[in-house]
Amino acid sequence: MAALQFQLQHNDSQSKARAGKIITDHGEISTPIFMPVGTVGSVKAVTQQQLADDVKAQIILGNTYHLYLRPGLEVLEAAGGLHKFMNWQKPILTDSGGYQVFSLTGTRKLTEEGAIFQSHIDGSKHLFSPEKVIDIQRIIGGDIIMAFDECPPGGSEYDYAKISMELTHRWLDRCFNRFNTTDNKYGYTQNLFPIVQGGTHHELRKISCEYVSSMGATGNAIGGLSVGEPTEKMYEICEFCCNNLPVNRPRYLMGVGTPWNILECIALGVDMFDCVMPTRNGRNAMLFTSNGVINIDNKKWEKDFSAIDEGIVCEISNYYSKAYLRHLIKSKEILGLQIASIHNLAFYLDIVTKARKHISDGDFVQWKNEMSVRWQQRL
Amino acid sequence: MAALQFQLQHNDSQSKARAGKIITDHGEISTPIFMPVGTVGSVKAVTQQQLADDVKAQIILGNTYHLYLRPGLEVLEAAGGLHKFMNWQKPILTDSGGYQVFSLTGTRKLTEEGAIFQSHIDGSKHLFSPEKVIDIQRIIGGDIIMAFDECPPGGSEYDYAKISMELTHRWLDRCFNRFNTTDNKYGYTQNLFPIVQGGTHHELRKISCEYVSSMGATGNAIGGLSVGEPTEKMYEICEFCCNNLPVNRPRYLMGVGTPWNILECIALGVDMFDCVMPTRNGRNAMLFTSNGVINIDNKKWEKDFSAIDEGIVCEISNYYSKAYLRHLIKSKEILGLQIASIHNLAFYLDIVTKARKHISDGDFVQWKNEMSVRWQQRL
Repeated sequence: MAALQFQLQHNDSQSKARAGKIITDHGEISTPIFMPVGTVGSVKAVTQQQLADDVKAQIILGNTYHLYLRPGLEVLEAAGGLHKFMNWQKPILTDSGGYQVFSLTGTRKLTEEGAIFQSHIDGSKHLFSPEKVIDIQRIIGGDIIMAFDECPPGGSEYDYAKISMELTHRWLDRCFNRFNTTDNKYGYTQNLFPIVQGGTHHELRKISCEYVSSMGATGNAIGGLSVGEPTEKMYEICEFCCNNLPVNRPRYLMGVGTPWNILECIALGVDMFDCVMPTRNGRNAMLFTSNGVINIDNKKWEKDFSAIDEGIVCEISNYYSKAYLRHLIKSKEILGLQIASIHNLAFYLDIVTKARKHISDGDFVQWKNEMSVRWQQRL
Repeated sequence: MAALQFQLQHNDSQSKARAGKIITDHGEISTPIFMPVGTVGSVKAVTQQQLADDVKAQIILGNTYHLYLRPGLEVLEAAGGLHKFMNWQKPILTDSGGYQVFSLTGTRKLTEEGAIFQSHIDGSKHLFSPEKVIDIQRIIGGDIIMAFDECPPGGSEYDYAKISMELTHRWLDRCFNRFNTTDNKYGYTQNLFPIVQGGTHHELRKISCEYVSSMGATGNAIGGLSVGEPTEKMYEICEFCCNNLPVNRPRYLMGVGTPWNILECIALGVDMFDCVMPTRNGRNAMLFTSNGVINIDNKKWEKDFSAIDEGIVCEISNYYSKAYLRHLIKSKEILGLQIASIHNLAFYLDIVTKARKHISDGDFVQWKNEMSVRWQQRL
């Protein structure tokens, strides 16, 4: 049982892309990697078997805010942690709940101590502080746990972003203090990743990268992006952060994004991604495929009996036709949500698997540029 | 390519139960069998892979009414029939749509010609006649298709039940005329099963059994039961019909029922069952298990980390815990609907598989009596 290790295996000569391997007590993860979001202990509409066999997920994400409210810590602790509760034996990352506290709850109050919020389920009041969020994540038992941060809205002014970042940094100290004085609960080693903030301001991002780097964590995250700023600005700040974070630690860009966003950010040096887009958009009839974006709701697919996507290795994507999936979605059949979710997730995992191969083969940038155009086409 | 064959393999000495084999152009079916209901071209919340591997379904049912409205005959015909549309290569049975016309549609008009009804989706008007229903089922392409009948409400008086039965018999002639003068569309052989009606009246049921038997069909169905009459009456009429239908043809009891209903009706000589109960009740948190009935919503399962059911061979039932499934259902996660549906269906298929074994082993009645008590327990 050991702390997370990161081995760099290939560096792309034409970009900052890299291929590597993360080693955790629940197994290895090939990077770059995409992590399906398992909000409340379930990747929506996908069984753990399908997640392993069809999607080929290597690590999934759990949401601390949701899991804390339901099923709650008592149940999770009695189960022996989230891995056992959901019977998923590969690595899990949990977020800190900060993002949900600031986006999902109606009334909330931010203080130096933490954030007081009301549950979106029953209106009950709760406090998330840096210490509490570490304690909660100790109980949930993710292999990678995240520091509690404030995520300011996209486009925040310098002064607001600075004040927010400084609070995040003070909270970061408290997170690491708590983390370093508490034990792993279930025998395997947990790892705390700090999060860079600072909005769209280079000066603040630089300070935050330095602060985060000084923690000497086993991995580092870039937060506060893809929250409303223009895509080019997102790339710019992502690149800046990658250049100012340790080379020999995995870099996790939180909450990004489309397939072409992921390609670009891999080229900037990001190793880990998560996003609800494949599952959420899938449930809303939007498919990402090897040939472009499909709105499967559209009448043009009514008699298209070709497979959803022959361009990836996924039994579900290869087995069901566009016409059948369209019919299921139009008929509001649950199976439609399952197939669309599994396909989109499998496509995302296929992206990072292929990216990794092209990084090793030395033709990543050329491939990325071609795919980026192709995948953005509206079919 | 040949008409359906039925081979009787074992007759129970202590009951009328029998084990057999149905052979269709899409493969063999071991009887007694339970057929999951795939309403609109999808067994709700279950992939075709899970249906084959986890549920171990050997034949599924499609609803003519639903498929006719959505995706519609043009799409189904272009696909090459329902097997190809949904990519399910084992046998399919389609009902005649009669039951849905009389239960789902608001305004409808019954005439000698057929039934005029309004779509529950868009209010559009349609006519189902015996001829039309055969034509539709030719296009859908089920291996077994059903005659168009009127199903009178449970507890119908003798006079009403007689008039209704006589109409059903006239329609039956028209169904067979149409069936015998039209061809299989897709190369394999379709089989038309007639349906016994007559309410709860022995005299009518006797007439109907004789009429139905005279068709010389490859299999026969018992309709108009489990529509509100007392359970004992249902068993009584079922037994009466089994005794008055050909021995050497499969007997299909439509729309029945609970696990213990199925056990009893196997003992009366029924070979084929279908029912929405496992999927519908599963989606409403009711599980049938080897040890009894579980309302998984109940707080008592909150920290029960034992498998949903160790008593059947199904990866899903053995893999996920009661506490986890309860959490998913409470959180309204789609995965909860999937797991509950797969488990209940796997339980139903396990029932008929075990029944078949006990019929062969010669201890069916003793086993049935024990299981019937055990499975009805509320846990």
